[in-house]
Amino acid sequence: MKLEKCVTIDNVNRNLLNIRYAVRGPIVDRALQIERELAKGASKPFNRVVRANIGDCHALGQKPITFIRQVLALVSCPQLMNSPDLPADVKDRATEILQDCTQGSVGAYSPSAGLMIVRRHIVEYLEARDGVSASLEDIYLGSGASDLIKSVLTLFSGVVDGKPPAVMIPIPQYPLFSGTLAELGINQANYYLDEEDNWALQVEELERSYQEASEHSRVVALVVINPGNPTGQVLSRQNIEEIIIFAHKHNLFILADEVYQENIISKPFYSFKKVMHELGAPYSDMELASFVTCSKGWAAECGLRGAFLELTRLSPPVRSVFAASRGVMQCPTVLGQCVLDCIVRPPRRGETSFAQWREEREKIARLLAERASTAYSTFNDIPGYSCNPIEGSMFAFPQVEIPALAQEEAADLDMSPDEFYCLRLLEETGVCVVPGTGFGQRPGTFHFRTTILHSREEFQHMMESITRFHNNFLNRFS
Amino acid sequence: MKLEKCVTIDNVNRNLLNIRYAVRGPIVDRALQIERELAKGASKPFNRVVRANIGDCHALGQKPITFIRQVLALVSCPQLMNSPDLPADVKDRATEILQDCTQGSVGAYSPSAGLMIVRRHIVEYLEARDGVSASLEDIYLGSGASDLIKSVLTLFSGVVDGKPPAVMIPIPQYPLFSGTLAELGINQANYYLDEEDNWALQVEELERSYQEASEHSRVVALVVINPGNPTGQVLSRQNIEEIIIFAHKHNLFILADEVYQENIISKPFYSFKKVMHELGAPYSDMELASFVTCSKGWAAECGLRGAFLELTRLSPPVRSVFAASRGVMQCPTVLGQCVLDCIVRPPRRGETSFAQWREEREKIARLLAERASTAYSTFNDIPGYSCNPIEGSMFAFPQVEIPALAQEEAADLDMSPDEFYCLRLLEETGVCVVPGTGFGQRPGTFHFRTTILHSREEFQHMMESITRFHNNFLNRFS
Repeated sequence: MKLEKCVTIDNVNRNLLNIRYAVRGPIVDRALQIERELAKGASKPFNRVVRANIGDCHALGQKPITFIRQVLALVSCPQLMNSPDLPADVKDRATEILQDCTQGSVGAYSPSAGLMIVRRHIVEYLEARDGVSASLEDIYLGSGASDLIKSVLTLFSGVVDGKPPAVMIPIPQYPLFSGTLAELGINQANYYLDEEDNWALQVEELERSYQEASEHSRVVALVVINPGNPTGQVLSRQNIEEIIIFAHKHNLFILADEVYQENIISKPFYSFKKVMHELGAPYSDMELASFVTCSKGWAAECGLRGAFLELTRLSPPVRSVFAASRGVMQCPTVLGQCVLDCIVRPPRRGETSFAQWREEREKIARLLAERASTAYSTFNDIPGYSCNPIEGSMFAFPQVEIPALAQEEAADLDMSPDEFYCLRLLEETGVCVVPGTGFGQRPGTFHFRTTILHSREEFQHMMESITRFHNNFLNRFS
Repeated sequence: MKLEKCVTIDNVNRNLLNIRYAVRGPIVDRALQIERELAKGASKPFNRVVRANIGDCHALGQKPITFIRQVLALVSCPQLMNSPDLPADVKDRATEILQDCTQGSVGAYSPSAGLMIVRRHIVEYLEARDGVSASLEDIYLGSGASDLIKSVLTLFSGVVDGKPPAVMIPIPQYPLFSGTLAELGINQANYYLDEEDNWALQVEELERSYQEASEHSRVVALVVINPGNPTGQVLSRQNIEEIIIFAHKHNLFILADEVYQENIISKPFYSFKKVMHELGAPYSDMELASFVTCSKGWAAECGLRGAFLELTRLSPPVRSVFAASRGVMQCPTVLGQCVLDCIVRPPRRGETSFAQWREEREKIARLLAERASTAYSTFNDIPGYSCNPIEGSMFAFPQVEIPALAQEEAADLDMSPDEFYCLRLLEETGVCVVPGTGFGQRPGTFHFRTTILHSREEFQHMMESITRFHNNFLNRFS
């Protein structure tokens, strides 16, 4: 007798069926499969897979920041407090953190919003960044920015006055947003970034998107990703002002995904908070959610899951609702909180670890700038490719012309042209990038996202592989 | 000009308004306030607050397991690999884990479901526990059991054929369930545990609850908490069989919250998986979700947020949906995963750390058994108290008779009698416990939940404080 399943594809939560997450999607699955085939001795035109699908610096060989790892070791295992291998300021920091943990153990729950000391250091960090006061009560730590973004978006879920909610997101976007909105049953109101104007947000396009979505939805919030993911632009101060004024006009809640704010290559970063403040009333009174994570920036500790949210100017009852919803999940990982503490309060001049920290950090910044510049020039040198300057983040998102013949073959295989292109790239060179379809793009344009974090040799190998592949591809399909 | 808020209490997600989480609720807030008052020199009839509201062993003075913390230190900071302070098997374990991390860094993302090596060790652990085969593909690691329980419950959300979903949960329950169901918009179908029969699940009561909820809802799943939280019972094998047969009859998905399975005091623990298997077909083919966390058990590393879910016999398309929904959140904390690894694969006889590990573990078990026995006898000695044997978990949940006069005063203050009782207990003795209302209880009965994890002196102080308070309370209100 075959048992009827309780959960079937017909009765499972409909919202989950719409989740797509290309960064870990079918092309990546195929890459993992190819790695297994290679390990078993399969013969391929390449000897290794180059993973360029995910912004995971350590996976691409970046070494951890020594200070962070030493603090982690010590808060985990205070019996090492006398170890001669650990510098004085590491011991001081670990002691300071442990004093804020109940009974001095990172194994005790922290407050739901995070350890007091980490939040205090975050406040200092934000005040130094913006020249604007920040409040302990507005800071919430989480297990990754994804966790916190989902919590904030959850506030907007639910039909009001017969209208479903909608949140405006950029296209291209980071698919955490589309995936989470799908899960929460919130409509996605797309606005296109202007590729011709270095991926700027044009108010006219924001307005179009808002009006279109308003016909059937209650548009409640606007997501901005700055520095851009996958697009790598850093918004100008003027553009940020325009966005704020637009959001204010329509009473939209701004979610500023600013997780790449420490991955700045060639243009100053302005936080939404700072610009709102400097615009003055009424803009300086607007609600705002801004996200920072230890997975990005120079630390790039993706696996350690530390992040924070600054959630400003919420009405007090809504703040209580938010805090209660966070409280049910107990607290974010205390060790992830410790990583954040080291990031927002790194070693200072005069402290034992300062020189090493500065050297490590500068090396990471140098490497990122080099790769950005190489990627930009290489991609613009390939016929049929165009790529905007990479001003921040860890990605390039070049546009690729795909010949009509290749588009037809893709259609025959029930794939989009860019998926077809990326799959061929993988099969022929071992280079694994994510098709533009996974992020969204203007109809008729094709892109892919690649990380630019590899070692010099690997990066050069990747660039050469892509160039060679593209020439062969054009020969075959033109 | 006062700015209109984007998010107001009138348009915020309705579901969030129904979240209550008493374990961190108003009585706990008052306790924290009292701690601050004491620190400022306020005069009270006690000199310290005794926190007995949350099952947080380290916060109550339990020392971390040395092996776990040494492994954490080493995977965080592999430069300590040559440290003479760390034993050989710690180095072996750290090396083994790091080999499974991309580029040997815990700072790289792991697969969404967790590191392969940890899942392999979990499979071995489950097979040894149950004598039933387990599969790597069924294991998902998470940032705490709460995270994983929420993901599984999310599968059930959504109206089908005009009927909203409902999930059956015990009363008393752990309020993660009520809170998460509220957030997901899933109806809560309460079944009462039988306090007279040591908090057993009676099939007649399950049937009543099912039928009642079926009138307006689609009842899809049954939550069982074993060992019980807050109730501390360990279900008999026969009771588990009855529950499985009941669930099968109504095609209910079983969620077995088995997080206290390593906190066993006086009765053997049987997993739902084992009993299902031994019942044979059709029961051995039923879907099942079972949860284990590093926050409980002998490790009790609440702050480190490691947990796993075994999700068996899902239909393949539903499994893909589940995996996709987990993938959007990237991965659980890798250091939390390392803790789990140490728990499911602790030092073995012959390994360097075995003796110390065994000694630490036995001490924790001994202490728990002592406290359970003291709590049981003390509570049953207080007039008007009754308490079932504490067979597992870390809690006692005594029933307290509250005089009519006190009930009237509570009503005047707009509180439930047990909330009033617990607040008075806190104000007069500094002992902070959670009222039964926070977990649910049969109308007209009153309880509170207290942890039983304190040091001997603190526990004795707490028991004496409660006894003295209760006598005064009776004098005042009888």
